[in-house]
Amino acid sequence: MITIAIDAMGGDHAPQVPIQAVNQAIDKYPQVQFKVYGDQTKITPLIRTDQRIEVIHCDEIIDNEDDPVRAVRTKKESSMVKAARAVKEGEADVLLSAGSTGALLTAGLLIVGRIPGIDRPGLMPVIPTISSEHPHLILMDAGANADTKPINIQQFAVMANVYARQVLNIERPRVGLINNGTEASKGSQLSKEAYALLSELDSIHFVGNIEAKNLLNGEIDIAVTDGFTGNAILKTLEGSVKSLVSLLKSTFKSGGLLTKIGAFLIKNPLKNTLENLDDSKQGGAVLLGVKAPVIKAHGSADEEAYFNAIRQSIHVIESQAVVQITNYFSD
Amino acid sequence: MITIAIDAMGGDHAPQVPIQAVNQAIDKYPQVQFKVYGDQTKITPLIRTDQRIEVIHCDEIIDNEDDPVRAVRTKKESSMVKAARAVKEGEADVLLSAGSTGALLTAGLLIVGRIPGIDRPGLMPVIPTISSEHPHLILMDAGANADTKPINIQQFAVMANVYARQVLNIERPRVGLINNGTEASKGSQLSKEAYALLSELDSIHFVGNIEAKNLLNGEIDIAVTDGFTGNAILKTLEGSVKSLVSLLKSTFKSGGLLTKIGAFLIKNPLKNTLENLDDSKQGGAVLLGVKAPVIKAHGSADEEAYFNAIRQSIHVIESQAVVQITNYFSD
Repeated sequence: MITIAIDAMGGDHAPQVPIQAVNQAIDKYPQVQFKVYGDQTKITPLIRTDQRIEVIHCDEIIDNEDDPVRAVRTKKESSMVKAARAVKEGEADVLLSAGSTGALLTAGLLIVGRIPGIDRPGLMPVIPTISSEHPHLILMDAGANADTKPINIQQFAVMANVYARQVLNIERPRVGLINNGTEASKGSQLSKEAYALLSELDSIHFVGNIEAKNLLNGEIDIAVTDGFTGNAILKTLEGSVKSLVSLLKSTFKSGGLLTKIGAFLIKNPLKNTLENLDDSKQGGAVLLGVKAPVIKAHGSADEEAYFNAIRQSIHVIESQAVVQITNYFSD
Repeated sequence: MITIAIDAMGGDHAPQVPIQAVNQAIDKYPQVQFKVYGDQTKITPLIRTDQRIEVIHCDEIIDNEDDPVRAVRTKKESSMVKAARAVKEGEADVLLSAGSTGALLTAGLLIVGRIPGIDRPGLMPVIPTISSEHPHLILMDAGANADTKPINIQQFAVMANVYARQVLNIERPRVGLINNGTEASKGSQLSKEAYALLSELDSIHFVGNIEAKNLLNGEIDIAVTDGFTGNAILKTLEGSVKSLVSLLKSTFKSGGLLTKIGAFLIKNPLKNTLENLDDSKQGGAVLLGVKAPVIKAHGSADEEAYFNAIRQSIHVIESQAVVQITNYFSD
């Protein structure tokens, strides 16, 4: 039986969305049980069945306004901290939350704890590409670390490689280092040293440097970089897609009758296309490098996105990705 | 009289595009003369008039395959090096090239030379936003430096501020520091120290940290960051716009008859919208911090884009932006 600890109070639509997703998953996945952390008076009426769902009441909530480190240290009765503690104590296998990213990373680090041998865990989203042959791009680190050393980037590559193989079933993932040019001699002090460390690794298929303009075309499966750059790239992607969609909308809105008819005719195919860019289909971003998977769903996740994150949580546990990572670094 | 040194052999369509743009500019700007560097046998037949156009023959070309530093040091007879030397020796006021970015940055640094008091020049593109009220975003440094110190970021802000005021006529440019969160306490060691230095400056209107997802919505006029992150952001933007456009195209192409009719009806308004995202309307990216402006046009620039870069070159000289920067740092 797989046990998922749900921080039911995290996210813009908590606890409704997490609970709806749990209700949906309970039928679909008989091998799974849930420990749901949060305000019992709000949660209990939403739950469809008490089979394999246990609600653990929590008095506190950590929100986006809280200072992450202080909140995790002081709000001991919060849903996020109690869910993380359940994972740490082996009462649950994986932690899922749509709450504050900073607090969740902190809870992962301070409560769940690092895998021995890993200096810094990394945050790993799976981003949809425009390639039908290679539809996934793993980005690591997308922001768990503000300051990164070359050895951290090497470890990110190893962890992401295990994930790509075990969870995404990519046989021989192509790993690229994000850099300001493709030549081996290019880059910052950090990226040059990371390049050397990645070249030394036999366990990964390192294909060299990649420029950020080529991330979405399916050239590589895994892009590793420092957490500051990775965070900027992820947010630039998010912002540019949003900006483009809003530009398209205002173009159609301000156009004449023919434009409006045209927009009506392409609406559905366009919607399908844009949905392919929605990374919540893959679930959430995984904090890898801690003793149990910690998965961050989007704060704005709807029921479907949250359900995808539950499916992903199950998949990560069943694939034994964290076990493999732990074994790798214990050698 | 303003003298523009043109590296006519740089870019994908050299020397045709640069010369066509020069031909167009010579009538429009009577206050301008051109020194055109490159292969005389190719250039002379393309030139429409020899009024205010001087062709200086060059035997060599620096291309994108060349190692930038070695090429600038050894290819003394190349069009780029000779054009840069003309600027250095006061025979021209500004250097314009669509050639190798790396080589042009090197030529700017090694030949034109730094302004005293400026540690590292920065590369500054002007990026179109989706805000009609604030249509321009200056990004600095977009990749002149692989490794950046806090003081460099402070100097980028001062230089970009002068450019925004003098060239883009923004009265009180809002300067933001790209960071992994908006709180003042956020960020890497580098961004925290840069934050402190930016806060100390009375000469700029520093509005604090900005996340990369909000760069295109007009919140700020100038985004400063280290050159590695800035390069990744610029390239992510480039790649995501390209990917989205290619997705739209394949959506329309693979759709049924109604989708195709719809696509036909929205084609022109969509084209206009996407053209607004084309940063070549602003000209090229400016290397600021060297003794004379060095302007990099896109390698793929067409005649119009190159003409825009000529117009921008004139504007930068007439606005005396570099003189003002020099005065600021000489105090």
